[in-house]
Amino acid sequence: MTGTLSVVGLGPGSPDQITPEALAAVAVATDFFGYFPYIDRLNLRPDQRRHASDNREELFRARAALEMAAKGEKVCVVSGGDPGVFAMAAAVCEAIDDGPAEWREIEMSVVPGVTAMLAVAAKAGAPLGHDFCAISLSNNLKPWDIIEKRLVAAATAGFVMAFYNPISKARPHQLGEAFDILRAHLPGSVPVIFGRAAGRPDEAIHIVELADAKGEMADMATCVIVGTAETRLIERKDQRPIVYSPRSFGGAGK
Amino acid sequence: MTGTLSVVGLGPGSPDQITPEALAAVAVATDFFGYFPYIDRLNLRPDQRRHASDNREELFRARAALEMAAKGEKVCVVSGGDPGVFAMAAAVCEAIDDGPAEWREIEMSVVPGVTAMLAVAAKAGAPLGHDFCAISLSNNLKPWDIIEKRLVAAATAGFVMAFYNPISKARPHQLGEAFDILRAHLPGSVPVIFGRAAGRPDEAIHIVELADAKGEMADMATCVIVGTAETRLIERKDQRPIVYSPRSFGGAGK
Repeated sequence: MTGTLSVVGLGPGSPDQITPEALAAVAVATDFFGYFPYIDRLNLRPDQRRHASDNREELFRARAALEMAAKGEKVCVVSGGDPGVFAMAAAVCEAIDDGPAEWREIEMSVVPGVTAMLAVAAKAGAPLGHDFCAISLSNNLKPWDIIEKRLVAAATAGFVMAFYNPISKARPHQLGEAFDILRAHLPGSVPVIFGRAAGRPDEAIHIVELADAKGEMADMATCVIVGTAETRLIERKDQRPIVYSPRSFGGAGK
Repeated sequence: MTGTLSVVGLGPGSPDQITPEALAAVAVATDFFGYFPYIDRLNLRPDQRRHASDNREELFRARAALEMAAKGEKVCVVSGGDPGVFAMAAAVCEAIDDGPAEWREIEMSVVPGVTAMLAVAAKAGAPLGHDFCAISLSNNLKPWDIIEKRLVAAATAGFVMAFYNPISKARPHQLGEAFDILRAHLPGSVPVIFGRAAGRPDEAIHIVELADAKGEMADMATCVIVGTAETRLIERKDQRPIVYSPRSFGGAGK
């Protein structure tokens, strides 16, 4: 007998940003796996079981969830933001790929959510308004020279960049190094947005120029957006400036 | 007297994927601007006014919305997906930037939503599981050589790509040309996902290899995701294959 496994995105943090589809997937599940702060966001019923874990055990957690689904349970794996963006969906797929054949028969679904860069961008204006990319700065799973290559490629080709996993206690230097690399390829005036807890009561959005951007301006819960030479700032009286990247290249189409 | 302007993302199409925050922003507004199929998704009250327009009049629509907000009205501009991803938020910012000083005093908010690539990725598995980028293939607002440069940069640096605006009646050749460019830089076996109406009753998700990908497999409502050499397919009995991009580079960390 084979159960079900849903991998559900809870959005950036505010209950107002969880989709009804995600709540419905939570409501029908019996067993919940995920990083404990995400599980804590759910109002689970007494009959719904929590299997919370540390954030660094993604593959272990994915396997435990699949084992339980293979036994016939209705399992839910929760992620913050969107599960497909540097979150649990890929870990679950990896576990299936390397796991026993019966795991492929599990009815798996992924429920999308609002990922952090969209929430931070919304608070700033429209910094992702033209072509953009999302890069995880963690070198736990890929070598730093690949990250460096992608930073240079994105900067020279004119992509706005959103950084996930910008920094952690175990990786304090990556974000500062990334800014150093980008300063060699982009004007110092390019806007950089540090967005933390977008949409939550402790929200903090800071905008600096790339010339002044420092690694210590972020923590592990920050999403960092770096503009391009085209990205613009609109100053306003009594309100935070608007940051946006024009849809047109080089002012064409205006 | 200055009103308010919210730029609201309605998600990929299913009412189940609209956030409560977006519905709340719709509920308090009096005047609605947007491409008519998006406005048609809302259950507006008799006291809420519709100012629907064609999809190609974004800047005109943004200005009309700002004019009305400047008069003191509560205006809502609606987008499908997320308003910050190839949608109305950047057009509104451009209009403010070029408009009269009073438009900067309008209380503007952007309400994020689930953008198409996240919904399509969720249906396929986790194709955006590592670093990725989003590119609009429309050359209405940027020259084709910039798009070409970005395609090559993304392919050679190992980004998964999501294409928005892949094709239209006025631009029938771009997507096919993009595939031709990518075939020079990526293995023919790279998975390509054509996702249309993800989450809606008429949903269509097709997976082909890059070697076989053709422009005519998409229409203007399709989001196309092109993997990397690392992207994998998991074949399943009686279910569509899962497509995912491993979190780790070159199998590191497995």
